[in-house]
Amino acid sequence: MKKSIGAKTLACPAPAWVIGTYDRNGKPNAMTAAWAGICCSTPPCVSVSLRKATYSYACILENEAFTVNIPSEDHVRETDYFGIASGRDENKFEATGLTPVKSGLVSAPYIEEFPLVLECKLLHSFEIGLHTMFVGEILDIKAEESVLDEKELPEIGKVRPLVYGTGDRTYYGVGKSLGKAFSIGKNR
Amino acid sequence: MKKSIGAKTLACPAPAWVIGTYDRNGKPNAMTAAWAGICCSTPPCVSVSLRKATYSYACILENEAFTVNIPSEDHVRETDYFGIASGRDENKFEATGLTPVKSGLVSAPYIEEFPLVLECKLLHSFEIGLHTMFVGEILDIKAEESVLDEKELPEIGKVRPLVYGTGDRTYYGVGKSLGKAFSIGKNR
Repeated sequence: MKKSIGAKTLACPAPAWVIGTYDRNGKPNAMTAAWAGICCSTPPCVSVSLRKATYSYACILENEAFTVNIPSEDHVRETDYFGIASGRDENKFEATGLTPVKSGLVSAPYIEEFPLVLECKLLHSFEIGLHTMFVGEILDIKAEESVLDEKELPEIGKVRPLVYGTGDRTYYGVGKSLGKAFSIGKNR
Repeated sequence: MKKSIGAKTLACPAPAWVIGTYDRNGKPNAMTAAWAGICCSTPPCVSVSLRKATYSYACILENEAFTVNIPSEDHVRETDYFGIASGRDENKFEATGLTPVKSGLVSAPYIEEFPLVLECKLLHSFEIGLHTMFVGEILDIKAEESVLDEKELPEIGKVRPLVYGTGDRTYYGVGKSLGKAFSIGKNR
């Protein structure tokens, strides 16, 4: 039996990604975003929605670039901190001890310690409401060699990314394999 | 040591959601989408990116509405089928035996058997490239009572949604809890 629970942002799963930017003084900044996802295959694009009030908002517009840094389970505390503190008040890289690496492709830093990072050039910004959606073209992905399979694709079981639960505002790991896509649906 | 793996849509985690629509003849259709996510808190919105070639693409534009149906692990095979077959050739609800329920709020059907469904009115459509991004305002969420916690919020451990692994194109469950958001980052 279904029950109405109102108009809320309670879809799941959501990612917990860290967006890397430079501010106007060249200080590296990082902010956690869960209102995000892949949004196009060609060109390969991700979308990330931020509130105008965030420090990262102006940083993205200033540089027309950002990185998407995918944390592993090992960095769940730093990821949460990146979503609590503001780059206006703190140097979040100094506070966490994580290393900002200047991308060679776009004007944004990526996080050395995270297993998978996307270097993105800003393609569009769309005003939706409280959030502005930034669409970035993925110019390259840098991956730790240790998370790649024999085809040089990142294995989710090795990346161990975070899943954000919107209902209980809790981070989760990825669980067990349930079957191959474009395959198990052929034999129902 | 990081390695360049090229410009690809290999971010993770991604969701595996099923988009419900009516075609011009009122036939219910359903299609799996992983290029999707929450994109605004106020108004509450989700974005879903589809290729123009899909049958659902015209259905969304025709009705200016869609539903986002969040499958549980129990429906991983049906979810995969919804991503393989086309509504042009098949009645996917008849093929799966799942039940389309007409939304009372928008011109789109939701899937009775799935634990969590979002009823969405089309707000924007943005051309990104191969994919068009549809932004839908969430007018209501219908949830199975069995997946709600004491605050009437969906518990991810009870919803048991699918996580799509973009590298190995495999469905996964959600794993263990790693800590509370807006909390564990305070004490690093």
